[in-house]
Amino acid sequence: MTPSQKKYSNYKKLVDDQLALLIRKKEPASLYEPAQYVLDAGGKRIRPLLVMLACEAVGGTAKQALNAAVAIEVLHNFTLVHDDIMDNAAARRGRPTVHTKWDSNVAILTGDALVAVAYRVLLKTKTPAIAHVADLFTEGVIEVCEGQAYDKVFEFRRDVSLDEYMVMIAKKTGKLVSVSSEIGAVIGNGSAKDIRTLRQYGELIGRAFQIQDDLLDVVADEKTFGKPIGGDIVEGKKTYLLLKALECAAGKDRQMLLSVIKNSGTSADNVGRVREIYERTGALAVAKVTIERDIAKATSLLKKLPATPARAMLYWLSDMLLNRHF
Amino acid sequence: MTPSQKKYSNYKKLVDDQLALLIRKKEPASLYEPAQYVLDAGGKRIRPLLVMLACEAVGGTAKQALNAAVAIEVLHNFTLVHDDIMDNAAARRGRPTVHTKWDSNVAILTGDALVAVAYRVLLKTKTPAIAHVADLFTEGVIEVCEGQAYDKVFEFRRDVSLDEYMVMIAKKTGKLVSVSSEIGAVIGNGSAKDIRTLRQYGELIGRAFQIQDDLLDVVADEKTFGKPIGGDIVEGKKTYLLLKALECAAGKDRQMLLSVIKNSGTSADNVGRVREIYERTGALAVAKVTIERDIAKATSLLKKLPATPARAMLYWLSDMLLNRHF
Repeated sequence: MTPSQKKYSNYKKLVDDQLALLIRKKEPASLYEPAQYVLDAGGKRIRPLLVMLACEAVGGTAKQALNAAVAIEVLHNFTLVHDDIMDNAAARRGRPTVHTKWDSNVAILTGDALVAVAYRVLLKTKTPAIAHVADLFTEGVIEVCEGQAYDKVFEFRRDVSLDEYMVMIAKKTGKLVSVSSEIGAVIGNGSAKDIRTLRQYGELIGRAFQIQDDLLDVVADEKTFGKPIGGDIVEGKKTYLLLKALECAAGKDRQMLLSVIKNSGTSADNVGRVREIYERTGALAVAKVTIERDIAKATSLLKKLPATPARAMLYWLSDMLLNRHF
Repeated sequence: MTPSQKKYSNYKKLVDDQLALLIRKKEPASLYEPAQYVLDAGGKRIRPLLVMLACEAVGGTAKQALNAAVAIEVLHNFTLVHDDIMDNAAARRGRPTVHTKWDSNVAILTGDALVAVAYRVLLKTKTPAIAHVADLFTEGVIEVCEGQAYDKVFEFRRDVSLDEYMVMIAKKTGKLVSVSSEIGAVIGNGSAKDIRTLRQYGELIGRAFQIQDDLLDVVADEKTFGKPIGGDIVEGKKTYLLLKALECAAGKDRQMLLSVIKNSGTSADNVGRVREIYERTGALAVAKVTIERDIAKATSLLKKLPATPARAMLYWLSDMLLNRHF
C-alpha cells in the first residue's frame, strides 16, 4: 500500500465507522433494517473523501467536514435505492437490491428515510455557513432527481444526442461529486475563489468518472470489473460510446447501432461487433481523450490551491480515477 | 363567511399563491409536470396555516413564516405521492394519483423532488434559528417515514393493539402537525415555553384530526364527505374504531371484527353491522369523547399564550377541526 492508499483507507474508515453507527433505532425494523443493509454495503466512498479533502485543502480539518461527508454518502445511497427500483435492478455490489430482498414499498420508504437521515447528519455540521451548506446539498438532491428523470425519459427516446447525454450525466452523477467538493470548501471556510475551484474540480472528475464507467463496460478486464463486459450494449443503454459512435457511424455500422437503440438492446453475441464499431468510429479514442482532458483540467485547477497534503491527495484521487479498472 | 373563515381563506390564498409559483422550471417535464399537478390539487392547507398562526401567536408575522409554511405543505404532498404508490390508491381529491396518471417511477421521482423543493423553500426562511428549524423539519420527515412503515406492517398483522395504532398515527399524521406549530413558534422567536405549548397544541389537534378521520368514515354524511361511508371497513383498515371495538367486543361481534381483519376487509353489505358493533361496544362514543378531550386540552393550552388575533384563530381552528364534516 502506498502512503496515499493508506491515507485513503484511513479516510474511508472514518466514514464507514460513522455509517455503521448512524442508524441507532431498531424499530420499525421494516425501515431501519433495510436502511442499515444499504449503508453496510460498502463502496469506494469517493464523495465523502472529496468533502473532507476539499475542506482540508482550504485550511479546515477532515473532522470538521465528517458529518457532511457522511451525509453526502447517505444521500448517494438513497439515489441508488430508488434508482434500482426504477431500473428493475436485481443486484448491486453483489447483493440483492432492497426492493428485491424486501419489496418496492420498503425500498421507496427506505430511500425516503435515507434522505432525512442524510439531512440530519448534515445539519450536525458546526459552521456559521450551515444554511449555505444545506442549500448546496438541496440543489444537489434536486439536480440528481432531474438527471434521473432525463435518464428514464431517454430510455424511451431513439434520438438522444450526445449533448443531451452530457447534460443528463452532469445532473445525475456529476452534480453530487461537485457538491461534495464545494460543500467541503464551504465548511473549511474557503474563499469564494477556492470554493469555485473545488466545485469545478468536482464537476470535471465527476464527468470523467461517468465516461470512464461507460468505457470500462467495454474495455475492462472481466475479472477485475466484477460483471460481464458489454452489459450496457446488451441492455441498449445510451452511453457516451453509443451516442458518440452514432454521431460518426455510417452504413451498416449505423444500422447496427440504431438497431441496438430501437430494440432496447441486443444479444451478447453482438457485443464484439458493436465494440468494433466503437473503435472504428473513434468513439473509444474520443472517450479516452475526453477523460484524460477532463482529468488534466481538474488537476491543473488544483494548482490554484495552496500546496498541502490534502491537495496532494486530490492529485492522487484524480489519478486513481483515471487509472481505475473497477 | 364569518370573519375567521375570511381570515382562513386569506392565509390559504397566501400559501396557494406561493405553491403556484414554486416550480419555476419546466424541464424535465416528466418531473416538473407531475410536481406541479400535485401542488395544484388544493387541500385545506391546515399545516401551513398552523405554521403562520404559531409564528404570529408568539409575536412574529405570518409573512416571516410563509416559506416554512409552504415547505411543510410541500412535504405533506410528498408523503401523499409516495403513500399513494404504496397503498395502490387510484385517486386523491377527485383526480388520478401521480402513479396512475403517469407511472410508479414518475411518482417515486416526483416525491423525491418534492422533498428537496420543500427543503429549498424552507431554507429561504430568514431566521438565526435556521439550523433548529431545519432540524425540526428533518425529524418530521423521519417520523413520517417511521409512521408509514408501521402502517404498512400493521396491514399484514392481525394483532395490532390500539396503543400501537396511537403510536403509528402520532408519527404518520400527528408529527407533521406538531412540527408545523413548533417551527412557526421557533421562527417567531418564541420562548422555550411558548414553543413547547404550541408543539403540544399541534400534537393534540393532530391526533384528534386523525381519530376524527376514522370517525367520519362511519358517521359522516355521504354527500359532504365526498366518498362512500364505511370505506375503511370495506378495506379492513385498522382504524381507531375497529381496534377500540375489538378491545371490548365479545362473542359474535368479536368474530365479525376478527373476520374483517383476517380477510383484510369485508363486503359493503356488512358496513351497517360493523357500525352497530362500533356503537354497541362504545367505540364510537369513546372516539368522540377522545376527540373532544384532545381538542379541549389543546384549547386550554392556548390560554398560556398572550391574547392575540392569532390565538383567536387557533381557537377557531381547533373548533373547526372538531366540527368538520369533510
